Amino acid sequence: MNYYSSQISKLIEELSRLPGIGTKTAQRLAFHIINMPMEQVESLSSAILEAKKNIRYCKECLTITDSELCPICASPARNKRLIMVVETPRDLAAYEKTGKYDGVYHVLHGAISPMLGIGPADIKLKELMLRLQQDVDEVIIATNSSLEGEATAMYLSKLIKPAGIKVSRIASGIPVGGDLEYIDEVTLLRALEGRVEL
Amino acid sequence: MNYYSSQISKLIEELSRLPGIGTKTAQRLAFHIINMPMEQVESLSSAILEAKKNIRYCKECLTITDSELCPICASPARNKRLIMVVETPRDLAAYEKTGKYDGVYHVLHGAISPMLGIGPADIKLKELMLRLQQDVDEVIIATNSSLEGEATAMYLSKLIKPAGIKVSRIASGIPVGGDLEYIDEVTLLRALEGRVEL
Repeated sequence: MNYYSSQISKLIEELSRLPGIGTKTAQRLAFHIINMPMEQVESLSSAILEAKKNIRYCKECLTITDSELCPICASPARNKRLIMVVETPRDLAAYEKTGKYDGVYHVLHGAISPMLGIGPADIKLKELMLRLQQDVDEVIIATNSSLEGEATAMYLSKLIKPAGIKVSRIASGIPVGGDLEYIDEVTLLRALEGRVEL
Repeated sequence: MNYYSSQISKLIEELSRLPGIGTKTAQRLAFHIINMPMEQVESLSSAILEAKKNIRYCKECLTITDSELCPICASPARNKRLIMVVETPRDLAAYEKTGKYDGVYHVLHGAISPMLGIGPADIKLKELMLRLQQDVDEVIIATNSSLEGEATAMYLSKLIKPAGIKVSRIASGIPVGGDLEYIDEVTLLRALEGRVEL
């Protein structure tokens, strides 16, 4: 790629190391960047560095944030006796977008996966158990509906139930707007098992 | 998006301003970036800034580079009497990748488009005409095969031919490996018109 200047080649190389960005996209982005106003380039460049520099985990729920407590744990409006357990900060964000959940979260930063050699000690389980020593009404397990997510949910419920805390799992079934014809059999069976009386 | 920290929200916002990067991709990239080693983050951040700071046009062919002459124009191995006219530095890169062209280039930085109000004065045509006052054997017009590219090619050939310089246009036809069945009619007709005796 030495037909560009060395600096542009360097930029293309750096961009193409990002996930989902191949050489073609990196090239397109690089040319866009060098045509952006200087001010916007500086803003992008510093946003990258600042986000990395100031990153830390919320001391309560362990989501990614830049202060001691994340905005959710710091809010007096949230119900601290209701904890939703998710795998990643992005799952937290997905539920926050609904705007209807008023409890707090706990981010595991992963799921148990014997296949990948990720055991209970490799995710933030100990921290969750510590939180449960305070007054908690219910733990909602919102790990993914994957093999790993289900295994984690099972493990968690077995761990928490003996403490006398209510444990629930988000429902699995047909997505809203989903067409039965195109839905896999496992989901169809789950929806059947989880049917609710009307 | 205030369920992330302000710095992460800022980074997501900056990334989603790039072309072809929506909020979801920006989120994925931002989380990847904050999980990268500090060293790599610094490298990405500075590559963006440095590429923008050091950008300039080659004084010969007007491609984007960081020195007075681009590596191609500076190379004694390239035939300066053969000039390929392209629309953008990326088109130049596409031909360079073939590794078979030993002439030099001229980057127009656009194409004539009456629809978008881009006239001959808005692209680097004057600079090309100045270069043609030196000894040049042939000008190869490699603008895109679009309406604008064709219009620009036509305009250029009318401008250059009277100077007694050979002008050629890259062939248009069936792409190698192309299946006739799936190729549009205009291309099929072009391929027919441009047929070569065997």
